[in-house]
Amino acid sequence: MQTVDLIDKKRLGQALTREELAFLVGGFTAGRIPDYQMAAFLMAVCCRGMTNEETAALTSEMLHSGEQLDLSAFGDRSADKHSTGGVGDVTTLIVAPLVAAAGGVMAKMSGRGLGFTGGTVDKLAAIPGYRLTLSPADFLRQAGQVGCAVVAQSGELAPADKAIYALRDVTATVESIPLIAASIMSKKLAAGARNLVLDVKVGAGAFMKTEAEARQLAHTMQAIGRAFGRRVRVVLTEMNGPLGAAAGNALEVAEALAVLKGGGAPALRQVSLALAAELIGMALALPPEQAAAKAEALLQSGAALEAFERWVAAQGGDPAIVQNEALLPAAPYRREVTLPQSGYFAGANALAVGRAACLLGAGRLTKDQPVSPGAGVRLLVQPGEPCRAGQPVACLFTDRAALLPEAERLLAGAFTVTSAPPPPRQPVLAVLREDDLA
Amino acid sequence: MQTVDLIDKKRLGQALTREELAFLVGGFTAGRIPDYQMAAFLMAVCCRGMTNEETAALTSEMLHSGEQLDLSAFGDRSADKHSTGGVGDVTTLIVAPLVAAAGGVMAKMSGRGLGFTGGTVDKLAAIPGYRLTLSPADFLRQAGQVGCAVVAQSGELAPADKAIYALRDVTATVESIPLIAASIMSKKLAAGARNLVLDVKVGAGAFMKTEAEARQLAHTMQAIGRAFGRRVRVVLTEMNGPLGAAAGNALEVAEALAVLKGGGAPALRQVSLALAAELIGMALALPPEQAAAKAEALLQSGAALEAFERWVAAQGGDPAIVQNEALLPAAPYRREVTLPQSGYFAGANALAVGRAACLLGAGRLTKDQPVSPGAGVRLLVQPGEPCRAGQPVACLFTDRAALLPEAERLLAGAFTVTSAPPPPRQPVLAVLREDDLA
Repeated sequence: MQTVDLIDKKRLGQALTREELAFLVGGFTAGRIPDYQMAAFLMAVCCRGMTNEETAALTSEMLHSGEQLDLSAFGDRSADKHSTGGVGDVTTLIVAPLVAAAGGVMAKMSGRGLGFTGGTVDKLAAIPGYRLTLSPADFLRQAGQVGCAVVAQSGELAPADKAIYALRDVTATVESIPLIAASIMSKKLAAGARNLVLDVKVGAGAFMKTEAEARQLAHTMQAIGRAFGRRVRVVLTEMNGPLGAAAGNALEVAEALAVLKGGGAPALRQVSLALAAELIGMALALPPEQAAAKAEALLQSGAALEAFERWVAAQGGDPAIVQNEALLPAAPYRREVTLPQSGYFAGANALAVGRAACLLGAGRLTKDQPVSPGAGVRLLVQPGEPCRAGQPVACLFTDRAALLPEAERLLAGAFTVTSAPPPPRQPVLAVLREDDLA
Repeated sequence: MQTVDLIDKKRLGQALTREELAFLVGGFTAGRIPDYQMAAFLMAVCCRGMTNEETAALTSEMLHSGEQLDLSAFGDRSADKHSTGGVGDVTTLIVAPLVAAAGGVMAKMSGRGLGFTGGTVDKLAAIPGYRLTLSPADFLRQAGQVGCAVVAQSGELAPADKAIYALRDVTATVESIPLIAASIMSKKLAAGARNLVLDVKVGAGAFMKTEAEARQLAHTMQAIGRAFGRRVRVVLTEMNGPLGAAAGNALEVAEALAVLKGGGAPALRQVSLALAAELIGMALALPPEQAAAKAEALLQSGAALEAFERWVAAQGGDPAIVQNEALLPAAPYRREVTLPQSGYFAGANALAVGRAACLLGAGRLTKDQPVSPGAGVRLLVQPGEPCRAGQPVACLFTDRAALLPEAERLLAGAFTVTSAPPPPRQPVLAVLREDDLA
């Protein structure tokens, strides 16, 4: 088998066999196939696509390149979620305790953020004392006892995906549905959960700009899940504005607490409940309406907040943050941004808010950059509320005062004010279930 | 300007500007852009194509990456030819003296062969004493005095093309019309001739499998020529069978001499005359019919043969080969291949003959492999001739007897015999002129 012949086959739009994909992925991971050949192959995939069979085979090769977590001790109750990356998306900190409170087991590996979208690991790192790494034994023990454990993703899961992703990032080959699907699913399959909910974002602030693209990605990932005997449901959510009222690590932890206490941004609450309901439905074998009612009840009763407290405490974090947000890190320099006109606040541009938060220190532009736990942007007005010119609409937080003017510049024009009340935001666009698998 | 953004732009099928292409070609040649990014870009070009403006800009960047020959001393008379690579194609050795005899100036750089298609340089190297390198001054002096000088292509012409081609070769990105056109034209423009004839091969033994593809390549190269103020004509020729009766370096020199003496394979004679007629027409400003008549007359009168003798002698080669072919190198081991049935010989498969000749030692599979001047395949029957089972159809020549069985195996089924006489071969499919430029 010659690498150049396999690249050529894909260039001509033909489907590769499982053996051919194994040759490419294995050869690249072992250093036998040089990066320039892999780059050409990846671009050919971007341009010519892959069949579902090819995508599943690619996923399988990346999955088997590393370790796999064994969550079989939790039977059908193990649950995991993945989001394709949003601004102000702190749903994991709400969904995990909801699933735990319902009797499911959220045993989850999370990633760090890159660029303007935050990573769950960075948000958890803002909780004083929280341990991002646990030994496999401790991880499983905590998940079993508390119903919830969330740690930083280890490089031992799907290392081939890690190597291929690094190359995709610098060769403009990220935006390919089969490559995105195989990358996400290889890591999620390696992480071992029986039930998986995928939050696929659609809109200006997301990778998938249209609902049609998002549905294609969703179907591709469900097909992979089916090939590996996992239950996969997808919630399509709108990502034009930030999901919550905060973008930044400690700011988002506080926002998650607000939702767990019954408040917080309505969109964040709705999406969190939708994701939790699907996982609860799969883990406990409940029909969708019952699962949704259970999630809602667990939030309202405070059971989810208690589960959050138990989880954080079990993982070494300070549970006192639940009652006293002042224990969370806060950046020293602040500046308020005001609205230029009166009317109704119609929302903020997710991309602009994400970029401003990243610039202020909440995110990283290169892999090894440190993040500031206290930096970010907090929105002070909820979409739909009446507002007046000169009213503060957002507060910027940073460790470096010199960054404030540039962040303000990024936010110029990011806030929309309309003369009539905007229609209420409906962040959940669709839920894709495959109950025939259950 | 970020490389990854430019790759992305091409992935999305958008046209790059001249500045963007200069950034890519210049950055790659200087080592600032790594090969994996260039590989991804080249694959995106293969899949998405390029406009004529982009192709001309790419050509310009590759052209200006190195030296350019100044043939302005020869005014409008300078001529050059290029072939997209065929089997048994020794036309340069016939066209060059025809152009010289007509009063044109063939000042030409030729390439070495790779794979199953021979290179003119390897054929000339089979002439005892022939000097493949001349100083620029000697090259121009000889071209002026004899009307003809052919040397090995120097690495100083279009070095960016050389670097890009090496990468294309190992990343399955060779087969792209804009990339092929820019590669050929950057070298031909650097070589400086005012008039250029391109022999674009079509068929099973050629890069371009269909006439439609070949025409697209031809039009792309003519558009580039127009952008640079050069006269470019294209002769589309059929390459299903070998052009001449020989594939192999010394064997092809002998075949060229046979044509110059009035014999040789009719297809080789026809294509050589067609190419020479176009160059003579452009260099001497003659209408097509007059130019064709002049080429024919120069061949029949022996004037072209005399020009060949003068050219070879001027360049250090032994002119006695013209009268005594035994002075050419000959490989010691020979074997005859016979026909399995009787009827009419309808021709040989170019690919099979080329591969067998290459295996026997006439070609090279890797860049630095030496070639044998005396090895190859000589066909003993002309297409259209009646033949009988058991009749020798080809003679194999090699320096290593052990290679003969494998070469014979490659030729099994390569010879077609029909019960009725086949239609006469018409190797010239079309001539594309742009006389509005003249």
